[in-house]
Amino acid sequence: MNGTPQCVSLTTDYGLADGFVAACHGVLARLAPAVRVIDVTHLIPPADVRRGAAVLAQTVPYLPWGVHVAVVDPGVGTTRRGIALAAPGGLLVGPDNGLLIPAAEALGGVVAAVELTNPAWLGPVVSRTFHGRDVFAPVAARLALGAPVAEAGPAVDPGTLVRLPEPVVHAADGVLRAEVLTVDHFGNVQLAAPGPLLDGLPSRVLVNGHEAVHGRTFGDAPQGVLVVYVDSAAQVAVAVNTGRAADTLNTAPGDLVTITTP
Amino acid sequence: MNGTPQCVSLTTDYGLADGFVAACHGVLARLAPAVRVIDVTHLIPPADVRRGAAVLAQTVPYLPWGVHVAVVDPGVGTTRRGIALAAPGGLLVGPDNGLLIPAAEALGGVVAAVELTNPAWLGPVVSRTFHGRDVFAPVAARLALGAPVAEAGPAVDPGTLVRLPEPVVHAADGVLRAEVLTVDHFGNVQLAAPGPLLDGLPSRVLVNGHEAVHGRTFGDAPQGVLVVYVDSAAQVAVAVNTGRAADTLNTAPGDLVTITTP
Amino acid sequence: MNGTPQCVSLTTDYGLADGFVAACHGVLARLAPAVRVIDVTHLIPPADVRRGAAVLAQTVPYLPWGVHVAVVDPGVGTTRRGIALAAPGGLLVGPDNGLLIPAAEALGGVVAAVELTNPAWLGPVVSRTFHGRDVFAPVAARLALGAPVAEAGPAVDPGTLVRLPEPVVHAADGVLRAEVLTVDHFGNVQLAAPGPLLDGLPSRVLVNGHEAVHGRTFGDAPQGVLVVYVDSAAQVAVAVNTGRAADTLNTAPGDLVTITTP
Repeated sequence: MNGTPQCVSLTTDYGLADGFVAACHGVLARLAPAVRVIDVTHLIPPADVRRGAAVLAQTVPYLPWGVHVAVVDPGVGTTRRGIALAAPGGLLVGPDNGLLIPAAEALGGVVAAVELTNPAWLGPVVSRTFHGRDVFAPVAARLALGAPVAEAGPAVDPGTLVRLPEPVVHAADGVLRAEVLTVDHFGNVQLAAPGPLLDGLPSRVLVNGHEAVHGRTFGDAPQGVLVVYVDSAAQVAVAVNTGRAADTLNTAPGDLVTITTP
Repeated sequence: MNGTPQCVSLTTDYGLADGFVAACHGVLARLAPAVRVIDVTHLIPPADVRRGAAVLAQTVPYLPWGVHVAVVDPGVGTTRRGIALAAPGGLLVGPDNGLLIPAAEALGGVVAAVELTNPAWLGPVVSRTFHGRDVFAPVAARLALGAPVAEAGPAVDPGTLVRLPEPVVHAADGVLRAEVLTVDHFGNVQLAAPGPLLDGLPSRVLVNGHEAVHGRTFGDAPQGVLVVYVDSAAQVAVAVNTGRAADTLNTAPGDLVTITTP
Repeated sequence: MNGTPQCVSLTTDYGLADGFVAACHGVLARLAPAVRVIDVTHLIPPADVRRGAAVLAQTVPYLPWGVHVAVVDPGVGTTRRGIALAAPGGLLVGPDNGLLIPAAEALGGVVAAVELTNPAWLGPVVSRTFHGRDVFAPVAARLALGAPVAEAGPAVDPGTLVRLPEPVVHAADGVLRAEVLTVDHFGNVQLAAPGPLLDGLPSRVLVNGHEAVHGRTFGDAPQGVLVVYVDSAAQVAVAVNTGRAADTLNTAPGDLVTITTP
């Protein structure tokens, strides 16, 4: 682990049906042909900055030291800033709308921030609606080649960076109440609560009033039964063995889930 | 920019749920292991040659000089020709059904065309239904390794290549009428009209009778309001700020959109 | 073709909307940065081991000699074994639930099997629910670097490996009855029957009572008409020219299809 970029990662809401992702890959391949590019996902729901922030933050710890580009950017082309952040564990590039902060914290915290205004670092023409291709990918390529962050533009006071609101997490007296952070492909419901908040709960609990097993993996509950566990991102989560907990609980990101002792 | 292939790109309607795309990657990796492969998209709607042609043409200008394989090919295994086209900005490989022509034009125009009949260039067994794997990928690998196009098969008169019909574009007297070329992941409606046809329109216009802002990016309109702008492919487009213009206009590729002065 | 891994392939039911696939790519890139990674698909329906097995088996023959990781793993974290299999044509890594066997057979048959219990080969922390990232990717990286399979853990008697039930295939007296193995992106219905079972059938047949052409490619039938053919995986399949056979036949994997002479 060190400060030489070994990959560029991409996290966007561009979808996979257009040429948007490939255009970003193309810009990177032209400017930094030797750099490996890893797609995190391009299926962040359009403009869902919170979801993008959560997926990125939970994935970057497993990627090589690198430059992580994220674009969920409903304000593209307006006065919102384009930024690069430096953290001990990597660099982040994208819009200043809160998207990058949780990942920066997962990589050790923001140690420097700049606004992406150096015209020499951008594409030859900067469109008003596709900064992934015209701003963020060119900047990421230069960073991946080893150029210093400080050359990308003027320093930004980290205290002025836009941040997402903190999700609700409340634990007391054997009751854990927390906001749903993500629902994954399997319908597993991940809460904003860190795993240790499950300590001390008994082997049978209630989740929004439904009976659930407090276990360690899906198969610890009978088929079709809820299981509460610490997931692979070290968050409290709720699953259904061979089912979809989000459907059983009828819940979605931003909703509150309450875990109680029967 | 020069004539040495630095990548192979893939654009298909194969979807992402089967092993079809990976089989093409595998053939390329076996024959040309050092060549970078960039996926443009594999979610062209099945058999939608026009959509494939538009996405490819708008993406190739941002890719490294290379070999661009496209397969949207309802006529696979019939008498339709497999072809390779040479353009100043790259090579194109796929079926002779109009799919490759707009991209060739975006890369400077067709300067040579051949029919892919050299058996030494094809896979060991050529199936009747999967020419991406058995014809186009093997040909692309050989071209990526630097073999000359002329060895892939006999020259084809470019005048005999199958072409898609030209889309409708009509501009006169402050009225712009144009066919919808694509609807992207965000529901943005891209017209066949090139961007300069917006010049001279006032800051408020009507799109199929709906009020719209003539702006430069999504945020130039209030939330939920239509905006007409020049998109990142330099085409006239219609969006809704934080919404889906295709839903607001109830329009799809091939439909006509009319922009008028109120 | 030889025994030096030239790629790692990934086949999962992880979907493309979360960071799961990227975390596996990241682990591979950290441990084996020079190895090419090919995504087969991540859209196996959740927990559909049979579908995963079929897609993998039909794709690996076209990939470079390598390490093929597959994760469709509803029993993750329970007592089901994690295994690596050696075949003449490649290595396979994943859960012991039948997923890997058809691919091993397509690569020449299982010649050795081990259980993945060597802690030195696994990730620093092994979660109970994400063995793709914490077990299978680290093992695959080490195998891709050339470490011997026997070091991954103790030998397993191949006779004890979990196997999927054999699909129904019955051919006699001009009647072919076979289970649907897969339905692809185009709605083409692939049967468990190998292609030679079509030999001797006349040019017109009935498929579940519907008239069909016995042909070689989609275009051998008029538009909208069923065609029975040998597909690109050398299996008997049913398509509709410019349509979806699975819809016409109202059939899905596991159903029986009967082809008869009119």
